Amino acid sequence: MRFNYHMPTKILFGPGKLNDLSKETLPGKKALIVISSGKSMKNNGYLDRLVEILDRQGIEHVLFDRILPNPIKSHVMEGAALAKSQGCDFVIGLGGGSSIDSAKSIAVMAKNPGDYWDYVSGGTGKGMPAANGALPIVAITTTAGTGTEADPWTVITKEETNEKIGYGNSYTFPTLSVVDPELMLTVPKHLTAYQGFDALFHSTEGYIANIATPISDAYALKSIELIAKYLPLCVKDGNNIEARTQVALANTLSGFVESTSSCTSEHSMEHALSAYHPELPHGAGLIMLSEAYYTFFASKVPDRFVAMARAMGVDVDSLAPEDRPMSFVKALIKLQEDCGVRDLKMSDYGIKKEDIPELAENARKTMGGLFEADPYSLSLDETIEIMTNAYK
Amino acid sequence: MRFNYHMPTKILFGPGKLNDLSKETLPGKKALIVISSGKSMKNNGYLDRLVEILDRQGIEHVLFDRILPNPIKSHVMEGAALAKSQGCDFVIGLGGGSSIDSAKSIAVMAKNPGDYWDYVSGGTGKGMPAANGALPIVAITTTAGTGTEADPWTVITKEETNEKIGYGNSYTFPTLSVVDPELMLTVPKHLTAYQGFDALFHSTEGYIANIATPISDAYALKSIELIAKYLPLCVKDGNNIEARTQVALANTLSGFVESTSSCTSEHSMEHALSAYHPELPHGAGLIMLSEAYYTFFASKVPDRFVAMARAMGVDVDSLAPEDRPMSFVKALIKLQEDCGVRDLKMSDYGIKKEDIPELAENARKTMGGLFEADPYSLSLDETIEIMTNAYK
Repeated sequence: MRFNYHMPTKILFGPGKLNDLSKETLPGKKALIVISSGKSMKNNGYLDRLVEILDRQGIEHVLFDRILPNPIKSHVMEGAALAKSQGCDFVIGLGGGSSIDSAKSIAVMAKNPGDYWDYVSGGTGKGMPAANGALPIVAITTTAGTGTEADPWTVITKEETNEKIGYGNSYTFPTLSVVDPELMLTVPKHLTAYQGFDALFHSTEGYIANIATPISDAYALKSIELIAKYLPLCVKDGNNIEARTQVALANTLSGFVESTSSCTSEHSMEHALSAYHPELPHGAGLIMLSEAYYTFFASKVPDRFVAMARAMGVDVDSLAPEDRPMSFVKALIKLQEDCGVRDLKMSDYGIKKEDIPELAENARKTMGGLFEADPYSLSLDETIEIMTNAYK
Repeated sequence: MRFNYHMPTKILFGPGKLNDLSKETLPGKKALIVISSGKSMKNNGYLDRLVEILDRQGIEHVLFDRILPNPIKSHVMEGAALAKSQGCDFVIGLGGGSSIDSAKSIAVMAKNPGDYWDYVSGGTGKGMPAANGALPIVAITTTAGTGTEADPWTVITKEETNEKIGYGNSYTFPTLSVVDPELMLTVPKHLTAYQGFDALFHSTEGYIANIATPISDAYALKSIELIAKYLPLCVKDGNNIEARTQVALANTLSGFVESTSSCTSEHSMEHALSAYHPELPHGAGLIMLSEAYYTFFASKVPDRFVAMARAMGVDVDSLAPEDRPMSFVKALIKLQEDCGVRDLKMSDYGIKKEDIPELAENARKTMGGLFEADPYSLSLDETIEIMTNAYK
């Protein structure tokens, strides 16, 4: 049992906590505020509330509002250029994972020369060290899905080459994060479900990963338990603040899992799907892959599956021992039914069965590192097999 | 459910991990190394190993080797003066809680003017803000007890006034900590037990505290489970590296609990005992208080006690509901028997029954803050009652 533990982000958690941001010492005097190109941050008043807090503290700010749901490298470069030209000394990501991830990558490029892909590892990335670190990052999350407020990871797509790759280092942990479930009440039903499953899979992957530790295990099992219990309630009634709070907590815990363990190849496979089909939400892609993926791995690490089933509320002890590992997959399917996302199909997003070998190769080339965290080493053929089994 | 989460320390955990310190970027160019006045850091070769790592990295170092088991303010001031006169830009605490706590307090006083008690809150402390922060702190723990490697707290005694008070702020989290169970193999039986119970009580207090959160709960229950299971094995065979590793993990988790929840008045009461009787080991004092303390609180927060009993391995469901909360206290007594510390007596350390009112008042005056974290607000009479019931 040997591991390194590091999760330095300070987190303000709970309903109404955005207001407490005004009591914190922010890590700079001029912020680049990064939000999506959509309208929700403005229409819901979240941007105004943030601006008011900054104004009251005498902190200058510049807005960059171009981020897409699957964020792209050219916007990272554009945001970094703006931060530099305006003399911003920290970055605030306000929104979902796409805005916060972009804020992290912009923070890196505002302090390092060249192109973002010079620093990315995997695919055509050059894997150079980002020697100058990054500007300090503040994350204010308005969704419960990526866990990015509690981990160092940012996922950006290079459009020209269909590469969607995760990146992170010790500088891309947010300095300060706000997780205020009141900001999540307006997330629509289907996105609530997609994002909740994304959080779930960060924890399930981190739990079966071969670098899991007793600490990441504790986070993962708690997160799995909370999502199984509260996600259907959130989907049913988006205004249920208790359920939103529990799912937000589960999501933050899943960020801790990503910080202390690792995602596995399920995420690599999904990145291939949504790199080629940017209109496919990441969480939806994971849901499409999940039954085939976990069915494959259930026999490889059965004890881990039994523990996950138990966390999901399955009365594991009443089952025959040979049925216990797969009872996790059954509970997963049931949860998908309860959240109204059981009928998602790759074909509905234009993915063709004959594309799967290329997508599997892309997954292994761009995000090969996560395959190394799998509890069993998948061949290319097995990768294709899982993705084919997931196809409908 | 509203809370702030912050545990920024990077931790290198596991057998042999001291060697990995050589791969880390240390937070300065000249270290003050703080160790106890005893011989073990030198005789066991731990100091030499640290010095070798520093030398190889070209980091200068100055040794301060005067710390007592119950560390005192005058040594904090002396160490800080040495750090300043020698131009040290970071502090390394190597040893048990006393050395690491002293390193933290020295780090504060190396950057702030005046006397250490100017910054301490409680008792005769002036509670001024330590406006200049602190030098960066590296902690290398050779015991499993205080959790100080994973929390911001330092406990120092002002000898003249018999005040033993905890202090900490966001700067007194270690930047980097090493938890290498191989360094713990030489801890003698009785100290292994005292320290293990100290870790246990950080978790049990943090679990019943009124500011506990779902995250601190997860740490606490895991820590309680590991100590109940592995501490007797450590006491029986100090060379059992697996048991040492599990107890070290439990101790680090209990540090997380101290960072994310709070100790309660049990710790205040013990500080009074060992402030007046510095030869009383802190863990031994806690053991003496514990049966009476937890018996008193079992009826106040019964559900919490049931969960703690379950974590200790009690088959709670087989008990009548009214017996469940106190089954934690029974398991605690059994654990004390199994670790050979059931017969500790205050009278053996010169504490007199008639001193208890004064000790209770000292506890409430110097460490009153922890009484506010209790799940039930104790009166002075109830404090005296608990301490009297604990007396033998």
